[in-house]
Amino acid sequence: MTAEALILDGNVVAADIKEKLLERIQGLAEQAIVPCLATILVGEDPSSATYVRMKGNACKRLGIESIRIDLPTETTTEQLIETIHKLNADPKVHGILLQHPVPEQIDERAAFEAIAIEKDVDGVTALGFAQNAFGYADFPSCTPAAIVAILDYYKIPVEGKHAVVIGRSPILGKPVSLMLLNKNATVTTCHSKTENLEDVVRLGDIIVAAVGKPKFIQGDWIKPGAVVLDAGYNKGNVGDVDYDRCLEKASAITPVPAGVGPVTIATLLKHTVDAAEKVAKRKSID
Amino acid sequence: MTAEALILDGNVVAADIKEKLLERIQGLAEQAIVPCLATILVGEDPSSATYVRMKGNACKRLGIESIRIDLPTETTTEQLIETIHKLNADPKVHGILLQHPVPEQIDERAAFEAIAIEKDVDGVTALGFAQNAFGYADFPSCTPAAIVAILDYYKIPVEGKHAVVIGRSPILGKPVSLMLLNKNATVTTCHSKTENLEDVVRLGDIIVAAVGKPKFIQGDWIKPGAVVLDAGYNKGNVGDVDYDRCLEKASAITPVPAGVGPVTIATLLKHTVDAAEKVAKRKSID
Repeated sequence: MTAEALILDGNVVAADIKEKLLERIQGLAEQAIVPCLATILVGEDPSSATYVRMKGNACKRLGIESIRIDLPTETTTEQLIETIHKLNADPKVHGILLQHPVPEQIDERAAFEAIAIEKDVDGVTALGFAQNAFGYADFPSCTPAAIVAILDYYKIPVEGKHAVVIGRSPILGKPVSLMLLNKNATVTTCHSKTENLEDVVRLGDIIVAAVGKPKFIQGDWIKPGAVVLDAGYNKGNVGDVDYDRCLEKASAITPVPAGVGPVTIATLLKHTVDAAEKVAKRKSID
Repeated sequence: MTAEALILDGNVVAADIKEKLLERIQGLAEQAIVPCLATILVGEDPSSATYVRMKGNACKRLGIESIRIDLPTETTTEQLIETIHKLNADPKVHGILLQHPVPEQIDERAAFEAIAIEKDVDGVTALGFAQNAFGYADFPSCTPAAIVAILDYYKIPVEGKHAVVIGRSPILGKPVSLMLLNKNATVTTCHSKTENLEDVVRLGDIIVAAVGKPKFIQGDWIKPGAVVLDAGYNKGNVGDVDYDRCLEKASAITPVPAGVGPVTIATLLKHTVDAAEKVAKRKSID
């Protein structure tokens, strides 16, 4: 029907981001600084454990130190916050990532807010969110930033286009909506209460799926020629988009796996190096 | 054509908000607390001066103290921030309002950020913005909160509806978009770079005009039966909406004047009383 869709290869974008980090990590090494990311995993959710392991491995391959902190499922909010405060105070640690979701007895928002803004490499604090919304955050949330990085890498026009975001979470749907708005897209944010969702999705020149439901976005919801970005990652390695059907309609599309996921991890590494460089800069001024 | 539009009378909504404040102000008086709003006006912009005067008068009529601070046009960012810090430290002051726009040599964002969160009754700080975006702010920006108050007062259904916001400023377009999203509307945010603006506006069941251009929104841009909220206030007492033409198409509409404006002021008074009550509560716990 339409010409063949461009596959937006996340591995290519991630490799480009990481490539550019190597020299910077080298530069930090010359100042005896090793960028260091601390990840906190509470409980034993197997997919969360996999993510944390992938992030740790990605750090290692690039020469970024990673500290992994595993806390038991029954951890309280207070105990988690105490752990975060220790990492805030540790000069060796440049970035802190609290893997979510956390077990339900924990006040996730309170835990996120405990992260010091200069170590909030996943942009989860309220202040980080607002700075991103206003367009001057050091560390926008990694998945939204990855989506923007893919659009940038493949030079997909955003200004004036109609972007439809499905999802409104504080770390994905809302920040990616605001980032696309700041890139001069007209932005519609949809969610579970949206009436006539198909018709709304059909408005989109750019579609961001951030629902957390496997193959939720159907091929016939997509305007021919739309650009489809799938931020979902569900059991069985499937995204939020019915890839095969959407592929027939889209002008460009991210696969799952090897789409947004690897770019999210690369963005996390980049933010950790950014944070380490800021520390280096402060040191050199002192 | 359509049945006659309901006029969303801001004076009625404002009177309702103020009515409910009287008893609370009385209750504070019994604890020897007088709610107090400090307004800062930098320079001599005549409309800004009018707004500040209106706010001061509204305070007086209700028994809220208002302190007005006038700073010269050539005030620096540092001088303005120093003034704000003094007000932050003054236990008599419960709310701080920096009238904007400020003269161009001032870093407005830096000045806003200097306001202590517990006195940020107009929701201008980044933290206040994010708390509002996440749905738990004490003080959402007053104009967005006024728009929501009008919808609530007139029991206009929002959930599932398509709201179109024209404007994306940090204190109006963005926060009202997020508030409507949190009330379960599907929200589209438009701006100067939006392509085919008329078609996008025509999608809206609820339209919020926050453009700052007189009579910008045309009658034939409006879907028949839409609800139109005009947050604009331009020279000659006209809003951002071509009221007469939109009146013919809308099911409900705010006039200008006597629409969003008076509710914004009533919301500011309410936030000041809220802030004073929080201080009273802390005192009673001490």
